[in-house]
Amino acid sequence: MHFGSDTTSPAHPAVLEALARANTGYESSYGNDALTGRLRALLTETLDTEDFDYWLVASGTAANALALSCFCPSTGAILCHEEAHIERDERGAPGFFTGGASLRLLPGYGAKIDPAAFEAAIAANNPDFVHETPLHALSLTNLTECGTMYSGAETAAFAARAKSAGLAVHLDGARLSNALAAANARVCQLSWTCGVDVLTLGLTKTGAIGCEIIILFGKAREKFPELRVRAKRAGHMPPKMRYLAAQAEAMLTGGLWLKLAAHANAMAAQLSSVFSAAGVEHAYPAQGNEVFVNLAPDQIASLRAQGAAFLEWPSGSCRFVCSWTTTEDEIRALGAALARR
Amino acid sequence: MHFGSDTTSPAHPAVLEALARANTGYESSYGNDALTGRLRALLTETLDTEDFDYWLVASGTAANALALSCFCPSTGAILCHEEAHIERDERGAPGFFTGGASLRLLPGYGAKIDPAAFEAAIAANNPDFVHETPLHALSLTNLTECGTMYSGAETAAFAARAKSAGLAVHLDGARLSNALAAANARVCQLSWTCGVDVLTLGLTKTGAIGCEIIILFGKAREKFPELRVRAKRAGHMPPKMRYLAAQAEAMLTGGLWLKLAAHANAMAAQLSSVFSAAGVEHAYPAQGNEVFVNLAPDQIASLRAQGAAFLEWPSGSCRFVCSWTTTEDEIRALGAALARR
Amino acid sequence: MHFGSDTTSPAHPAVLEALARANTGYESSYGNDALTGRLRALLTETLDTEDFDYWLVASGTAANALALSCFCPSTGAILCHEEAHIERDERGAPGFFTGGASLRLLPGYGAKIDPAAFEAAIAANNPDFVHETPLHALSLTNLTECGTMYSGAETAAFAARAKSAGLAVHLDGARLSNALAAANARVCQLSWTCGVDVLTLGLTKTGAIGCEIIILFGKAREKFPELRVRAKRAGHMPPKMRYLAAQAEAMLTGGLWLKLAAHANAMAAQLSSVFSAAGVEHAYPAQGNEVFVNLAPDQIASLRAQGAAFLEWPSGSCRFVCSWTTTEDEIRALGAALARR
Amino acid sequence: MHFGSDTTSPAHPAVLEALARANTGYESSYGNDALTGRLRALLTETLDTEDFDYWLVASGTAANALALSCFCPSTGAILCHEEAHIERDERGAPGFFTGGASLRLLPGYGAKIDPAAFEAAIAANNPDFVHETPLHALSLTNLTECGTMYSGAETAAFAARAKSAGLAVHLDGARLSNALAAANARVCQLSWTCGVDVLTLGLTKTGAIGCEIIILFGKAREKFPELRVRAKRAGHMPPKMRYLAAQAEAMLTGGLWLKLAAHANAMAAQLSSVFSAAGVEHAYPAQGNEVFVNLAPDQIASLRAQGAAFLEWPSGSCRFVCSWTTTEDEIRALGAALARR
Repeated sequence: MHFGSDTTSPAHPAVLEALARANTGYESSYGNDALTGRLRALLTETLDTEDFDYWLVASGTAANALALSCFCPSTGAILCHEEAHIERDERGAPGFFTGGASLRLLPGYGAKIDPAAFEAAIAANNPDFVHETPLHALSLTNLTECGTMYSGAETAAFAARAKSAGLAVHLDGARLSNALAAANARVCQLSWTCGVDVLTLGLTKTGAIGCEIIILFGKAREKFPELRVRAKRAGHMPPKMRYLAAQAEAMLTGGLWLKLAAHANAMAAQLSSVFSAAGVEHAYPAQGNEVFVNLAPDQIASLRAQGAAFLEWPSGSCRFVCSWTTTEDEIRALGAALARR
Repeated sequence: MHFGSDTTSPAHPAVLEALARANTGYESSYGNDALTGRLRALLTETLDTEDFDYWLVASGTAANALALSCFCPSTGAILCHEEAHIERDERGAPGFFTGGASLRLLPGYGAKIDPAAFEAAIAANNPDFVHETPLHALSLTNLTECGTMYSGAETAAFAARAKSAGLAVHLDGARLSNALAAANARVCQLSWTCGVDVLTLGLTKTGAIGCEIIILFGKAREKFPELRVRAKRAGHMPPKMRYLAAQAEAMLTGGLWLKLAAHANAMAAQLSSVFSAAGVEHAYPAQGNEVFVNLAPDQIASLRAQGAAFLEWPSGSCRFVCSWTTTEDEIRALGAALARR
Repeated sequence: MHFGSDTTSPAHPAVLEALARANTGYESSYGNDALTGRLRALLTETLDTEDFDYWLVASGTAANALALSCFCPSTGAILCHEEAHIERDERGAPGFFTGGASLRLLPGYGAKIDPAAFEAAIAANNPDFVHETPLHALSLTNLTECGTMYSGAETAAFAARAKSAGLAVHLDGARLSNALAAANARVCQLSWTCGVDVLTLGLTKTGAIGCEIIILFGKAREKFPELRVRAKRAGHMPPKMRYLAAQAEAMLTGGLWLKLAAHANAMAAQLSSVFSAAGVEHAYPAQGNEVFVNLAPDQIASLRAQGAAFLEWPSGSCRFVCSWTTTEDEIRALGAALARR
Repeated sequence: MHFGSDTTSPAHPAVLEALARANTGYESSYGNDALTGRLRALLTETLDTEDFDYWLVASGTAANALALSCFCPSTGAILCHEEAHIERDERGAPGFFTGGASLRLLPGYGAKIDPAAFEAAIAANNPDFVHETPLHALSLTNLTECGTMYSGAETAAFAARAKSAGLAVHLDGARLSNALAAANARVCQLSWTCGVDVLTLGLTKTGAIGCEIIILFGKAREKFPELRVRAKRAGHMPPKMRYLAAQAEAMLTGGLWLKLAAHANAMAAQLSSVFSAAGVEHAYPAQGNEVFVNLAPDQIASLRAQGAAFLEWPSGSCRFVCSWTTTEDEIRALGAALARR
């Protein structure tokens, strides 16, 4: 019953096979290899546009912080949800990579930014007032940290208002695959057609070893040279980049990443039903591969005693995450454990 | 004729096999997995001590900068050779990770610090003079950036003097394997018994995909919590750490890394002979897996035209690097190409 | 009717006289002058302790940021009120001086931290959890940014709980003089006896040209060398420090600063009565030299048209600040203007 | 016999008088006061152009670091002499203000950059090579740290070559007054007509309390909003700016600063003659208000014993600085002391 995190799962066999295929002959270093280069075609297909640039990193924290540091100077602020991963779980990485920028936190149910609070923050923003730290970027997460989802329309509304105020729009897509699978949408429908400037497209949680793609769209591509320089300086330009590219290739080819995400989502839906059937209240609607429920202390203790792995969230609810390796047996086992307490 | 860099080579098959073995079942994230844990035993054997802590990163730039940032505050300076990788090839990473510390550069033949210049710098250092930036760390590289070597005695002499002045001692061991193979020495003989506090032990150039181990020795272990925090904040705490640990395990088991380095060194020795036989002057003695020679412009053009890959070094010489994949055929081909011009 | 800010007032004549007296003969630079040295005796008397160290800076932003940067590493967070000057009005200075630390914001009426929110933040803090940014310092402001006051008992309660969790305690005393005058208290009663580790004692708003004193108490004195180094590196070690010391001497001698603050407070009390008499609601109790009232848009327009200077606060209320130069005539004029609309 | 530094001298009486005149009535804060505003006219006259912006700070370290941080990103490098104040005496301030940029050091006699070394550095610069830290700015100091001078022609030659390579040109003018007095030149002749983009024009050493003017010329003016933001964030936007402006006004009015510098230079010339007459060798030609001589250890001891204040320079020579308060009596006294040993 491994519901602690999708990062505790191994990588999909196709990823390992791709590494093995990549492991032959000499290749240029630092991203100048053939594999990294030919990823462009695959990404063009995945993104439904040719107007993008990309960089591969092995960690989501690095992907988010590098992306944001190209759009927010050290004297600016980034707007995000108060439960955003960049605020809660990245140990101040945005502050470090930007050289001191701050995060401006917004409330909202289920880790989705409250539109009224967002509007108030935008309205109060005054880039010309030297004493205050003005907003330079909006960072959304989809699938959110609470397993909820922004629709394309919601994303577009936030992005349009942000841009009207001069902010760049970043999308933390560590679990974008799950949102896409849930919405049966293409990447573009939750990103660049909505006004997203820079996307960190995660593949690690979905089934890679460690591979996130920073993607700059349209006008944001002018930041690409800066992105490379910042990646290099932060130790995120590994010499043998081909092995990152191989992971991306394996995951994107044939839409494997979306199939794996769809499986994780399906398992989460089953899990959600199991909880509902047991009379356990959901903290947030389970829209992707994460299920947040409100368990009583004795329920928590009982599940743990029976070997279930899950996280107690700061808000008081419990998080159960499904991945590409989650089985129906595990779901059934959890249901049985719930009944057995 | 691939002599451009040892980072253009693929990984050793044992590394890929180790990844495949690691790719099963659930594992705790962020370095709390069983593979990362059991590396301690292998490292204890490799290092001939139990008095160490370690952290795995995928890039040498990150390894060096993280290591140094634990020992030099933003208000201090790091002493190193003017051709050191941290100065020449890491895009200001030490300045970034430390928050503004500077590198104090020293001259010396073959990328080895000149002892007299070193002594002068140490003697002039005044940590209590608030206006100047005082030295906090010495960074040595072995094998050096010019393919030369520090003996254990030399390392110990530099380290002892550095420590007498309150400096911590860092060893950039991106090619330590080659130095060890050349000296037929154990790691301890070029590191902690010489007074090295923090070693970045490189496995990438030797034959891994991307794996460097930051090792803190003795009293320096008190910096381990800070190192983890800094790694996290810089995006160098990947969730699925087991795949870094698997690489390290594969390389260290049975001394594979030293065998691969010995092969690379042997190929470099042959290459060196080929150059000598052709009357080409060495810029520096070829003590490890790198050969620096002074080629005439037409020789450079001729070799390139015949398909040889190598780097023209800023100093004017040309660098040829051998790796675990270099073959005698390639050496012979280069000899033939040299003769053919 | 100048109620815009106490910083729009000129300096007290005694300050100018002190500068003139200081302006003779040669003095050592960078804080090694006789005037800076002899300030220790005056501060000993002012602070009722000998267990302190001090540094002079010309700006409150610098004073706060330098103080905090000695107690919060770049990987940590500082707890403060969401309306704190360090968050609202210092353009990210704490993030810059610390190299990326963040501010954790707490709510509370009248810019005073809500004890329950504070307790929740402390209780949730987990310095050993590497992913989150842990708290390293608590920053209080007294007089607060909304003109309210922390009693000694309140300060002591916050400080004790903060310290029990390993946090250092900083007091932004830009208007400490006004709090002291209001409470008829000595500095120690609102600072070190309550557990404050580092105080930025402001004299600029009270009547100096530009002079703030960073004071380290007790065990915090071990940070003094770091404070000097950080001051130097940030350009806050002016060569002719004697002129900062002269200002401090003039203000502290004979308790001039407290007399000036008492005058400002008295004028604010009169102003507060004027508003009450006119039926204007106070946003917060006027406990020092600042009066926050809720004015209707036509009242705001009318007062402005009649030449009154004051600030519209982000929360919607209006801020009127009195200083050592505020006269009863100005108060009466404002009363008349209020009536005249 | 106070030859330790020109910063040990008091301020000129005209400066104190200006402060007293400024000390009346209310003024807007943070640089929006009338005095700061009307400085523009005086600077226009001083600089022989209207095409500039300016900001006032109280410290030379802050002035240089703020100026440079607008022209060199954290991923870049600044070219300067190895004895430059920004390298030797500012505790890493450029690294701090830029967020990690480095200084690339050049040799040269008398703290003047060697043209051949400069050309080599420029020629080797490759802004597109992601691994190396490229040059973004050249920083010259005039009068140099060794009391020598760059002519307008020399400045123009360095600036032209720097700009051809895309570098901005900064002039550290902490003692520009002395260079101007020596060359009988106007500011423009050593600054913007030579291609200087940003000048830190020092008045502190010349006779102010603490006042340096950062001046942006021509196209560099587009950095002015960033400069203000950076100044604010670093605590270099003091609320009562009028007192900095008053100092500048006093010094620039009627060319007082140049008269004071001319006096200091004249005294240095006399001192130089005294040394020559005594057979003491000059380390560098005394072109401004600083005299560097090579004294024997017993001469140093003897002069110190007789009460002479001066600095032993890292290079081994001794530095004697004259200021606006230096008297012929002091020169004679030093001559007598020299003879008396």
